[in-house]
Amino acid sequence: MSERIYNFSPGPATLPPSVLQEAATDIVNFHDKGIGLIELSHRSKEFMAVAEETEGLIRELLQVPDNYKVLFLQGGASSQFYMVPMNLLGTGKKATYLNTGAWSKKAIKEAKLFGDIKVAYSSEESTYNRVPTDDDYSVATESEYLYFVTNNTIYGTQFADMPKSDTMLVADMSSDILSRPVDVSRFGIIFAGAQKNMGPAGVTVVILRDDLLDCNAETVPTMLRYKTHADKDSMFNTPPCFSIYCVGRVMNWLKEQGGVAAMEKINQRKAGILYDAIDGTDFYRGHAEKASRSLMNISFNLPTPELEARFISEAAAVGFDGLKGHRSIGGCRASIYNAFPEEGVQKLVDFMADFAEKNG
Amino acid sequence: MSERIYNFSPGPATLPPSVLQEAATDIVNFHDKGIGLIELSHRSKEFMAVAEETEGLIRELLQVPDNYKVLFLQGGASSQFYMVPMNLLGTGKKATYLNTGAWSKKAIKEAKLFGDIKVAYSSEESTYNRVPTDDDYSVATESEYLYFVTNNTIYGTQFADMPKSDTMLVADMSSDILSRPVDVSRFGIIFAGAQKNMGPAGVTVVILRDDLLDCNAETVPTMLRYKTHADKDSMFNTPPCFSIYCVGRVMNWLKEQGGVAAMEKINQRKAGILYDAIDGTDFYRGHAEKASRSLMNISFNLPTPELEARFISEAAAVGFDGLKGHRSIGGCRASIYNAFPEEGVQKLVDFMADFAEKNG
Repeated sequence: MSERIYNFSPGPATLPPSVLQEAATDIVNFHDKGIGLIELSHRSKEFMAVAEETEGLIRELLQVPDNYKVLFLQGGASSQFYMVPMNLLGTGKKATYLNTGAWSKKAIKEAKLFGDIKVAYSSEESTYNRVPTDDDYSVATESEYLYFVTNNTIYGTQFADMPKSDTMLVADMSSDILSRPVDVSRFGIIFAGAQKNMGPAGVTVVILRDDLLDCNAETVPTMLRYKTHADKDSMFNTPPCFSIYCVGRVMNWLKEQGGVAAMEKINQRKAGILYDAIDGTDFYRGHAEKASRSLMNISFNLPTPELEARFISEAAAVGFDGLKGHRSIGGCRASIYNAFPEEGVQKLVDFMADFAEKNG
Repeated sequence: MSERIYNFSPGPATLPPSVLQEAATDIVNFHDKGIGLIELSHRSKEFMAVAEETEGLIRELLQVPDNYKVLFLQGGASSQFYMVPMNLLGTGKKATYLNTGAWSKKAIKEAKLFGDIKVAYSSEESTYNRVPTDDDYSVATESEYLYFVTNNTIYGTQFADMPKSDTMLVADMSSDILSRPVDVSRFGIIFAGAQKNMGPAGVTVVILRDDLLDCNAETVPTMLRYKTHADKDSMFNTPPCFSIYCVGRVMNWLKEQGGVAAMEKINQRKAGILYDAIDGTDFYRGHAEKASRSLMNISFNLPTPELEARFISEAAAVGFDGLKGHRSIGGCRASIYNAFPEEGVQKLVDFMADFAEKNG
């Protein structure tokens, strides 16, 4: 099969075909300079320009205020689970966490190594089928920050609005960063692995307020201090050059689409098509409560696990890949990040109607 | 300039053109499956096969014993500076370090956060122009390990033979891994950033003996325990997929060249051509003592800084890139890792003779 499939994978995920073509050209011969992109020294003027452009585009698209740093780190969002509390907490310091899924639960576990962690909300007992409203929890007094995951990839839930708390927000935005406008100034730290909405795996974008750079205890290794990387523009050691380059190309594509405000409308439309298909029949059943539904990951079930297996298998046979739900909740999941084409959503919905009719 | 230049960069460094071509094809359409390489889920059977093949080739080329794990981590070799002692040391535990350059010095600084570190040797006062022989130092009694850097990229020094100590060896092999055969069984841990001899930046290969996996204190974050990654075949979280793929392609290329024993002969020949050129005139002067000379990085000086600047500039103009020495020692440096073509070394030597004649 050489025709392009529809890739509903939760991440690494589908990317704009134009970006793949650019990367293919540059890998062999970067800007016709007789050297491949991945052979460029990270200290070459060519790569420095790539990194600067990538940072500039992220700043522009998310309207990042000047008193924030944009860092390109390694180790995935999972490494931020400990880096955030390692840098911001310490003996006697407190933070409030919202437990809305597997990733927040993991973040809570790591944070407990570094401070007094209050879990103010959990939807674990209902298999994380919802995120809280502001009335559902209270932020513990003297919390250094309120930590939450804006979009829960596995369960298909998303904060439609950010928490209104006056406490500084810290958010894992791995699966919905740049899918909609966000007021960065309300956050102390935003971080996101690139492999869902920004590019390939291998780089984690960390946006942090610069007054948070000096919180380190002496016992924190050099590489684990945000300040180390901020002081050297993410070039303290060799950065993940190729992933940074690709993020830049995706940002450029996103800008061409009209930026995050335009993208939000497209995302609402794409998700709307799918949720309408789910709600329009008893055959499909969404996992998330309606008010908590994600525009990025649509998790749903069919009447039986057998039908789910057949659905996933028959879908794959006609070019819809990655629809299997996460093993922790089973069922199906369609991940439709920024780069997922709208016509693919329409085609999936047609397939779903057809499958329901044949098997309902 | 679309003709390929000769890239003497110390890392990221030159790669085999065939690997760049493979990557360019696979990025757009992986194995004709209608999906790009960097869009593949890390849990897809396609990418799992890529990771398995890469690990298998490293094992084969380095003859890694069965009781060793091969991990693909992130954060660069610099992250191993703290991960090694964080996992292997603890209060009251001791290790011996050899200070042969900037990277070992940084490793010593981080290790001191986690244990009792004895620096048994240092060539810092002579600008790291040599590595020790076994007679030059004693390993502190009860050391958990002896730590050293096999090849010092900046200064152009290399251990021609590994230390004979009975103490378990731990080595940073970032700049000479796979350039020659090595007896892995003498090491507890070997690690190397990929961007010199293995592929693009973004992945660090860690080879470690499996009895070292259980040394963690409870206070070590999940992501910083070797066991976390070993238990999940480096898929505890999303790995740097593209870099792992490229390492696999480079390993495949290396196998086609005859493996590490054949490559060592080529490397000896390439470095020999350059050192002969340096030794054959008073115009050029090698930085390293002869017995400590590196086959990977050849650091040398010209009579004056002005001549060095002109040399680097004129060389760049005719397609020799990356010859500027590290800012800490100045001068010139030719990095000629496995993938650097022999004809490029010959052409540089011709250029050097010409330059010396005109300016000597």
